[in-house]
Amino acid sequence: MKLVTYELEGKQSFGAVVGNGIFDVGARNEAGCGSVLEVLQTGSLSKVEKMTSGAGSDADLADIKYLLPIPRPPKLLCIGVNYANRNEEYRDGSDLPRFPSMFFRTPGSFVGHGEDIVRPPESGQLDYEGEIVLIIGKGGRRIPRENALDHIAGMTLMNEGTLRDWIRHAKFNVTQGKNFEKSGAIGPWMVTPDETGGFDGLHLTTRVNGEVRQDDTTDSIIFDFPYLINYISTFAELEPGDVISTGTPTGAGARFDPPKWLVPGDTVEIEVPGIGVLSNGVADEKV
Amino acid sequence: MKLVTYELEGKQSFGAVVGNGIFDVGARNEAGCGSVLEVLQTGSLSKVEKMTSGAGSDADLADIKYLLPIPRPPKLLCIGVNYANRNEEYRDGSDLPRFPSMFFRTPGSFVGHGEDIVRPPESGQLDYEGEIVLIIGKGGRRIPRENALDHIAGMTLMNEGTLRDWIRHAKFNVTQGKNFEKSGAIGPWMVTPDETGGFDGLHLTTRVNGEVRQDDTTDSIIFDFPYLINYISTFAELEPGDVISTGTPTGAGARFDPPKWLVPGDTVEIEVPGIGVLSNGVADEKV
Repeated sequence: MKLVTYELEGKQSFGAVVGNGIFDVGARNEAGCGSVLEVLQTGSLSKVEKMTSGAGSDADLADIKYLLPIPRPPKLLCIGVNYANRNEEYRDGSDLPRFPSMFFRTPGSFVGHGEDIVRPPESGQLDYEGEIVLIIGKGGRRIPRENALDHIAGMTLMNEGTLRDWIRHAKFNVTQGKNFEKSGAIGPWMVTPDETGGFDGLHLTTRVNGEVRQDDTTDSIIFDFPYLINYISTFAELEPGDVISTGTPTGAGARFDPPKWLVPGDTVEIEVPGIGVLSNGVADEKV
Repeated sequence: MKLVTYELEGKQSFGAVVGNGIFDVGARNEAGCGSVLEVLQTGSLSKVEKMTSGAGSDADLADIKYLLPIPRPPKLLCIGVNYANRNEEYRDGSDLPRFPSMFFRTPGSFVGHGEDIVRPPESGQLDYEGEIVLIIGKGGRRIPRENALDHIAGMTLMNEGTLRDWIRHAKFNVTQGKNFEKSGAIGPWMVTPDETGGFDGLHLTTRVNGEVRQDDTTDSIIFDFPYLINYISTFAELEPGDVISTGTPTGAGARFDPPKWLVPGDTVEIEVPGIGVLSNGVADEKV
């Protein structure tokens, strides 16, 4: 099942993707939920799955404005360097990290599928990072690795858009360069794990104007999904609707010589078979 | 005016402090707001101020459980090294930073005034950091320094509790050591700026079991409040209810030789005249 959160004729709802259309779950009282977040908080995913099985379409995907799959997640956490060959890109001779690096982003730093990501006047170094995103269904603390995957309700995709010069403003922490308004994207929807046949060997590609820039599989991941869920839940209580982006493969624009920054008019596509394609244009901010 | 968010007999509300009591604003329909966040989002602070002027007390402060002044702020951002003499503590010969370091924390990593902060079994290095916190009343983007202070609705205090060994788990980013559940505290309430006579020369002290450990004024701040609001709003849209903690003076436990970590039974008090005293015990987590 694919659950899409959207706006149509000024109203926000969510529904299941059926062919090229949407079955509007949010509008139906029997769901008892007005958002994907509420579906997860109330443990209603299987109820929604039953409702939507064999259902017809209420609206065309072509007509909607895509919103973030979870517009206001309780937590939105991103993992840094997490693909083995990416650590080498740093060429600092360092060994593989012992623990994952991570940082929070605001929901406001993202747009949905189909909307332009924004280059602010303060930086010319807007860069893409294609990532696979986990959405937590069942919360918990100190979740064992053995059953960590049971805590995932679904997946989506992220363009973890970054203003490269602003991530080094301070000695520590990349916060500023990772949190410019509308500098990244999440979407197009939340996909339940049955659609990808589970979590193994997911193949991620990032294309800029059709040119493949990132191309790797989750087999290259240093800290895999069960590790991340166990490690994060060691310090923080995971909640339904929490969003964890799992890191990007080699090939971001900063790694080219000279760097290949995004410019207005570019199109960035991030694809994982079974999840979908997250596609966004690039525009200069109107200030 | 001091606005306190609290729980009494299992019900959550908020109200104005009157003497040793509380005038329950949340319970009164004329307020039209169920929380301090809604007061700020609807621009109702002066309406609430009128309601509470000369009001009587509905409950005793001694009977309530203090909650975070804004239980679920849109953003909760903390500034790193921001007192001039603190940069010297690092003894790395570095110049003053050009830009502030900053990171997000989860609301779940804090408790309210009077509740124990928690030492987890994964670390023996629980440390305190006393800080002055700004609460945004009026949002905005690229807010000029000249009128930045007008965007502050009030102030509160933070014990920016930290697990020192966990902030260096990764190359960059202090996320993990700053986000253990209930490892810090915010409170006791939100104080409007008239109660402190504005924002200048605020005098912060941190005491552990009565011993003064931090003692400094905002005159030592490197990046002052107007700078922070201008700088943060350059990349992120500030919203009503956003919480910005402005950094800690010299004297955290990690800076002593040997370090003075917090242990169960300790009491940490953070005080700024006009704002109040944030007091918390320390307890081992029950796992």
